[in-house]
Amino acid sequence: MTQKLLETLFFRVFDNPILARRHDGAVLETGAKRLAFTTDSYVVDPLFFPGGDIGELAVYGTVNDLAVCGAEPRWISAGFIIEEGLPMEVLARVAASMRRAADRAGVSIVTGDTKVVPRGRGDGIFINTAGVGIVPEGVEIDPAGARPGDVVIINGPIADHGIAIMALREGLDFETPVVSDTAPLHTLAAAVLQTCPTTRVLRDPTRGGVASALNEIARASSVGIVLDETSVPVRDAVRGACEILGFDPLYVANEGKLIVIAPGDAAGKIVERMRELPEGRESCAIGMVTSEHPGTVVMRTLIGGTRIVDMMSGEQLPRIC
Amino acid sequence: MTQKLLETLFFRVFDNPILARRHDGAVLETGAKRLAFTTDSYVVDPLFFPGGDIGELAVYGTVNDLAVCGAEPRWISAGFIIEEGLPMEVLARVAASMRRAADRAGVSIVTGDTKVVPRGRGDGIFINTAGVGIVPEGVEIDPAGARPGDVVIINGPIADHGIAIMALREGLDFETPVVSDTAPLHTLAAAVLQTCPTTRVLRDPTRGGVASALNEIARASSVGIVLDETSVPVRDAVRGACEILGFDPLYVANEGKLIVIAPGDAAGKIVERMRELPEGRESCAIGMVTSEHPGTVVMRTLIGGTRIVDMMSGEQLPRIC
Repeated sequence: MTQKLLETLFFRVFDNPILARRHDGAVLETGAKRLAFTTDSYVVDPLFFPGGDIGELAVYGTVNDLAVCGAEPRWISAGFIIEEGLPMEVLARVAASMRRAADRAGVSIVTGDTKVVPRGRGDGIFINTAGVGIVPEGVEIDPAGARPGDVVIINGPIADHGIAIMALREGLDFETPVVSDTAPLHTLAAAVLQTCPTTRVLRDPTRGGVASALNEIARASSVGIVLDETSVPVRDAVRGACEILGFDPLYVANEGKLIVIAPGDAAGKIVERMRELPEGRESCAIGMVTSEHPGTVVMRTLIGGTRIVDMMSGEQLPRIC
Repeated sequence: MTQKLLETLFFRVFDNPILARRHDGAVLETGAKRLAFTTDSYVVDPLFFPGGDIGELAVYGTVNDLAVCGAEPRWISAGFIIEEGLPMEVLARVAASMRRAADRAGVSIVTGDTKVVPRGRGDGIFINTAGVGIVPEGVEIDPAGARPGDVVIINGPIADHGIAIMALREGLDFETPVVSDTAPLHTLAAAVLQTCPTTRVLRDPTRGGVASALNEIARASSVGIVLDETSVPVRDAVRGACEILGFDPLYVANEGKLIVIAPGDAAGKIVERMRELPEGRESCAIGMVTSEHPGTVVMRTLIGGTRIVDMMSGEQLPRIC
C-alpha cells in the first residue's frame, strides 16, 4: 500500500477542478472579503457505526463548524494518518463516503495529504479536515452574543451519536436501534439566518454535548441559561441506554444537532421555518437566556425544582468523534 | 492530562484576537478575492531533532506550501492527535515552538482542535496544520507552467532534513553535524515573484526530494528537465551520510528548500536577488527545461554522460515529516 496508490485513490474519488491542478495548495476564487476557517481531527472508534462512518463525520463535522460561524461551507482539506496494514477496501469506503458527504454538503475537497505510520503507532485511520466558507455580508454570529430574553432552540432529540457509538462498543442491543444523527447543518443554519438575521449564536453541540456548549455560551456572553427539562427532546431508546450506561444525555455527543439562540420575539418564526427542513423536523425551544446567575446553566426539572447543569466534570467519552 | 488543560495551554501559547473569540471556527477579514488553502499532517519521528521539531515543521511546512502557491501566508489551523501519557512538558515545548515559528512566518494560529487517543493507538503527538494565504493580483504560479528554455534554481544544499533525521535514528555521528534545513520560505518566494512576476513554478521539495518534485513538474508541464550534476549543491557531510545509508540525495526530504522555475533570461537576476536573503544565500541554477524527453528528468553527470532521474521507486523514508 504505497503513497502513490493512496493518492491515486483520493484524487480519483474527490476529483474536482481545483484538486486536479495538483498544486501544493488550492487557490480559491472566493469573491468574498470575509471567510470562516475551521479544523477538526477525527479519531472515532469504530470507523463504521450505525448511521455513519469516520469519513462522513469528518466532512459534516467541519461543514457544521463553518455553518455555526454563519458561513456558507465551500472548500475542505483532508489530511489522512493511516496505520500500515489498513485494508485498501476500508480506505476506499471511507473516501467514497467523504465524497458523498461533500457532494451532499455542497463542498469540494480541494487539497490534502497522506501520511502512513507503522503498525501499532496509529489506529486504522485518523482524518483531519479543515474548511473554508464564505460569511455573507451582515451575518454576525458571536459565541458571546446571547442576551437576556433570548430563546434557546434545538433541531431535535439529543445524544443519538454518542449512544450509537457507545452501544456498539458495549454490545448493547435495542428494540429500536439508535443511529448517529450525523448530518450537514448548513442549510438549516442558513434558513435560520434568513428568517432571523439578528440570530445571536449558532452552535453544534458535539463533544461534551448540549450542556458543555450552553455553558460555554453562558460564560462567553455573561448570561444565565435556564433549560426546561420537559422540553429537551431525548428518544426513549437513548434515555434507556443513558440509564444503563450511567450517562446524562445533556453531556453526550451529538453530530447533527444545531443550537440556535435568538431574540425571544423571533423564536416562533424560527422554529416554524426549521421544521420545514428535514434536518429541523423536530425543532423546539428548550430554554431561555436570563440576566440571573450569569455564566451558569440551570435546568428546571420535571417536579418543579432547579439543578445546576455544570460543564462536564470527569471523563468525556473517548474517541466519540 | 485533560482536554481542558490542553486547550488552556494552546489558547495561552497561540493567543491572538481571532483565536480569542473561542468560536468553532475563525472568521477572517481577508480583503482579497483569491486565496490559497493547503494542509499537511506531521508524524515525524523523533519529535525533536537537530535543527527543529515537529511543531516548527508543522508551521513552516504549511507556510511553505502556501508560499509555493505564490500566496502570502496568513492564517493557520492546528489539529492535535495526542497519545495518552504524553508528558505535558513535551506538549508545552511543541506549542511554544509552533508559536515562535508562527511569529517568525507572520501567521496566526486562529483555530484548532485536540483529540486524545489511548496509549498504543497513536505515537506521542501527530499535528495537522491547514493554512490560508492571500494570492496577490497577477500572480499565476502553476505546476504545469514550466516551458522549454526555463531555468531551474534552488536556494541551497539539498537533503539536510532527511539526513539529520536518519542520522539521529541510526545513531550516526558526523564531524560537522547535519541539521535540518527547516525554514519559512515565504519571504524568499515573494522576493522571487517581485523580481520576476512571470516566474513559472515554485515548489518546496519535501518528501521524495528534488527528484520527485521535478518529475511531477516535468509531467504536469509536458517538458523535459536536465539537471547538471556538478551544480546540484550537497554538503560533504550529507553526501557522506548518503553513501553510508545508501540514499541518493536527490530523493531525500528537504524542509527549507525552494525550487524556482523561471524564464532563462530572468534567471541571473533571480539568483542574485535570492542570494541577498539569509534563506537564499546559497542559491544557484541547477538545470534547464527542455522540449526533449517530455515528462522525464535527466542528470548530466560529472563524467559527461546522462542518466534518468526517475520518480522515487521503492520505499520513501518513513515519518520524515
